[in-house]
Amino acid sequence: MNIRSVISSVSRIVVVFGALMLAPAAISLMFGEGDWAAFLLSSAITAAAGVTGVLLSAPKDNRRIGNREGIAITTLGWTACALFGALPFILAGSLSTPADAVFETMSGLTTTGATVLMDVEAQSHAILFWRSFLHWLGGMGIVVLSIALLPGLQIGGSQLFRAEVPGPLPDRLEPRIRETAKRLWGIYILLTVAQTVLLRVFGMSLFDAATHAFGTVATGGFSTANKSLEAWNSPAIDMIVTVFMFLAGINFTLHYRALRGNFKPIQKDDELKTYAGIVLAAIALISLDLLAHSRYSLGNTLRHSSFQVVSLITTTGFTTINYDIWPPLSRAILLILMFIGGCGGSTAGAIKVVRVNVLAKHSIRELKRAVYPRRVTVIRLNGKAVPEEVSSAVLAFVILYLSVFLLSTLAMSAMGLDLMSAVGSVAATLGNIGPGFGLVGPTCNYSAVPAIGKWLLSFCMLVGRLEVYTVLSLFVPGFWRKP
Amino acid sequence: MNIRSVISSVSRIVVVFGALMLAPAAISLMFGEGDWAAFLLSSAITAAAGVTGVLLSAPKDNRRIGNREGIAITTLGWTACALFGALPFILAGSLSTPADAVFETMSGLTTTGATVLMDVEAQSHAILFWRSFLHWLGGMGIVVLSIALLPGLQIGGSQLFRAEVPGPLPDRLEPRIRETAKRLWGIYILLTVAQTVLLRVFGMSLFDAATHAFGTVATGGFSTANKSLEAWNSPAIDMIVTVFMFLAGINFTLHYRALRGNFKPIQKDDELKTYAGIVLAAIALISLDLLAHSRYSLGNTLRHSSFQVVSLITTTGFTTINYDIWPPLSRAILLILMFIGGCGGSTAGAIKVVRVNVLAKHSIRELKRAVYPRRVTVIRLNGKAVPEEVSSAVLAFVILYLSVFLLSTLAMSAMGLDLMSAVGSVAATLGNIGPGFGLVGPTCNYSAVPAIGKWLLSFCMLVGRLEVYTVLSLFVPGFWRKP
Repeated sequence: MNIRSVISSVSRIVVVFGALMLAPAAISLMFGEGDWAAFLLSSAITAAAGVTGVLLSAPKDNRRIGNREGIAITTLGWTACALFGALPFILAGSLSTPADAVFETMSGLTTTGATVLMDVEAQSHAILFWRSFLHWLGGMGIVVLSIALLPGLQIGGSQLFRAEVPGPLPDRLEPRIRETAKRLWGIYILLTVAQTVLLRVFGMSLFDAATHAFGTVATGGFSTANKSLEAWNSPAIDMIVTVFMFLAGINFTLHYRALRGNFKPIQKDDELKTYAGIVLAAIALISLDLLAHSRYSLGNTLRHSSFQVVSLITTTGFTTINYDIWPPLSRAILLILMFIGGCGGSTAGAIKVVRVNVLAKHSIRELKRAVYPRRVTVIRLNGKAVPEEVSSAVLAFVILYLSVFLLSTLAMSAMGLDLMSAVGSVAATLGNIGPGFGLVGPTCNYSAVPAIGKWLLSFCMLVGRLEVYTVLSLFVPGFWRKP
Repeated sequence: MNIRSVISSVSRIVVVFGALMLAPAAISLMFGEGDWAAFLLSSAITAAAGVTGVLLSAPKDNRRIGNREGIAITTLGWTACALFGALPFILAGSLSTPADAVFETMSGLTTTGATVLMDVEAQSHAILFWRSFLHWLGGMGIVVLSIALLPGLQIGGSQLFRAEVPGPLPDRLEPRIRETAKRLWGIYILLTVAQTVLLRVFGMSLFDAATHAFGTVATGGFSTANKSLEAWNSPAIDMIVTVFMFLAGINFTLHYRALRGNFKPIQKDDELKTYAGIVLAAIALISLDLLAHSRYSLGNTLRHSSFQVVSLITTTGFTTINYDIWPPLSRAILLILMFIGGCGGSTAGAIKVVRVNVLAKHSIRELKRAVYPRRVTVIRLNGKAVPEEVSSAVLAFVILYLSVFLLSTLAMSAMGLDLMSAVGSVAATLGNIGPGFGLVGPTCNYSAVPAIGKWLLSFCMLVGRLEVYTVLSLFVPGFWRKP
């Protein structure tokens, strides 16, 4: 492990992050609110810490960023941002304990959208902007952003890119990793601007439009209203958000190719087909269940079922209604969607559709092998054979994901949460969704969870956002050993 | 597919099964009860159907029992036994609908122990004996029994053996499969007799002692009392049952070797170590949880926690207490145990400890590979390398198991069960446990489940008992095609 390089790179990310805190300070001044000083001070502390780190570590040999260094930089970079990003919440007086402030920041950065704030509407514009801005930075990835902005991180960039971008098979759009990072951020900004304009046109204020667009394209879920999108109660807004959540759950390389007029990969993409198929099937089943067991009109049934299905499968977590009182089948489907997640290479969390695809194909292959032991077939995705190492890694990913889920659920139960709340809180944070079931359901928040539980759930968010391997690798024996 | 051979073999199993129905008829006569005629008639119908099948199918070539035939014989043999075994319940007037009678029989045969009877204590001795006797036959396996008894089934016996005996790596004790089958049944009978004697000595009637011994060594769970073992309220009996449930959850080949004085394989067995470790850890955690949150004495805490832990991990399902009112951590642990199950090659159901071992080792291997991509290590169990095909099959097993679990839970939710009851009922039947949580918790029974739900849960029991592959293989395209 080249510790100097790691500290140096993490420090650079912290400097970038400190500079980004000037944005909410500007918002504060723009709205004439008093907490600009809190943001300016946080920015100064963060940037100073980052600069100190860069100066003290000064690696002798910049080129020695290997696999392990990439993993360490990503995990520690995110952890550092979650810690420094908590400063404004405390300095501005929004949250009083470190557990609360770090939970809220980690929830923002990891695009979870779970909140401990009792009254969102009582917060200043700057705080609300900061929460949504954290989503937006974490959605495409603060490390990827740093790669795009800082030349110093380019060496070893492909290691960092792999550690941060979701999905088992990250596509490179361009031979140079920095170009890929720039392209991805370009599409991301385009989607954000398009949605902001649409939301503004259909009745939101510009501030609400922009913050909700941040929360949508990052599949985050923080809202500026206590009742989330239910506060606007506008079918048009619900539909816009549904469409953009769906888009944000698609592999961004497909967006890029579509923008360049290349639609062939989209038509061929197995993951996209499965994703769309699951969404449609879930909407159909939940709609039938709601029509049979509740009193919504057909229009409202379709509106709320499609919104909640897309919101939970993309792990966004916006709500238009309290789905926790829906009939058992609908709730069971939503709980399963929380584990599936969006497509690899999107901003969505959880297990990801491509992995579900590999799992399904692997199981069917093995079932066939039990019948015909001598016929061995290869698993194919998008017409290409999936190497055995990849499917092996995918299977292990799912087991590790479920292991973290089970152990954390046990720990949350031990803190006194009832079983449904324990399951819901871990599923919702590990999958970077936000609202869960029970105590942490759509109408409640995480403020009632004990402090130690907030730290554990913050860890779950990080494990989920960095796709398990990146964080758990740090605990592999010998990881920190010198090369 | 050699259909004639399949029908012929299934018919022979049915004949054996019909003959076994004479045992409860004898019990009925012994206790001077009136339902001996129902059992005699059922036996005659079953045997006649079997003999007709044998005569009509008369295969030209007895030797053509391959892999597919073995799978078909096992699945269809079990299904036939579950249907014919339901006759006495209907003819004796204990249960009125086919859904109820088949559910009860399947629950017996698959050693599940879930009941639809409202009042067990109102049943005749013959019916109670039949339920426990079904456990006992299904525990070691009706097909294995037939192999031991009938020379005609010996050809192709190894295929049948593999399809019925639980666990991914069935050990053969003897080169000839029929000898292995006999040895396994020998140990099984020895355990049953030993436990019967002990229970009799510590205060049970001989009838209760024998039926509970059947239910224990088969890890079944049917009791002769409505309140299960709580009715006796005897610490000695609880301890005897706990020990024998634990023994029944161990690979029977280890019992065999121990009886022959060979203790080396036992000391070396990774699965046994993990099994014992999980049991001890679960007892410790639940005891601490109960001491902190409920008012049991230390003695009762240890007694009930060890009994319920062993009862649920071995998928027996006897109860000494209503664990559904225990605090959340204890309930969460019990729910997880319901998925783990006992050791491969035991009578226990669910996923099995050896598979959990393989999953854990595979995940850790892949995690290490993420850190050191160039180092590839082999998974080892009991000092031997586990072939990649085996771990591939184990991973697929778990995914198929969870898929059946999820889809069945959705279906049960659609029938109006609340989420916890839906999860509990499927986990308890698929894992061959018996009592679940909620509506189907330890103090309730399955009579309130709608008829279609009973059929689905009966299917889950069969899928669980025959370890997923054997049943699902029948739906693989081309399975029924002629060779």
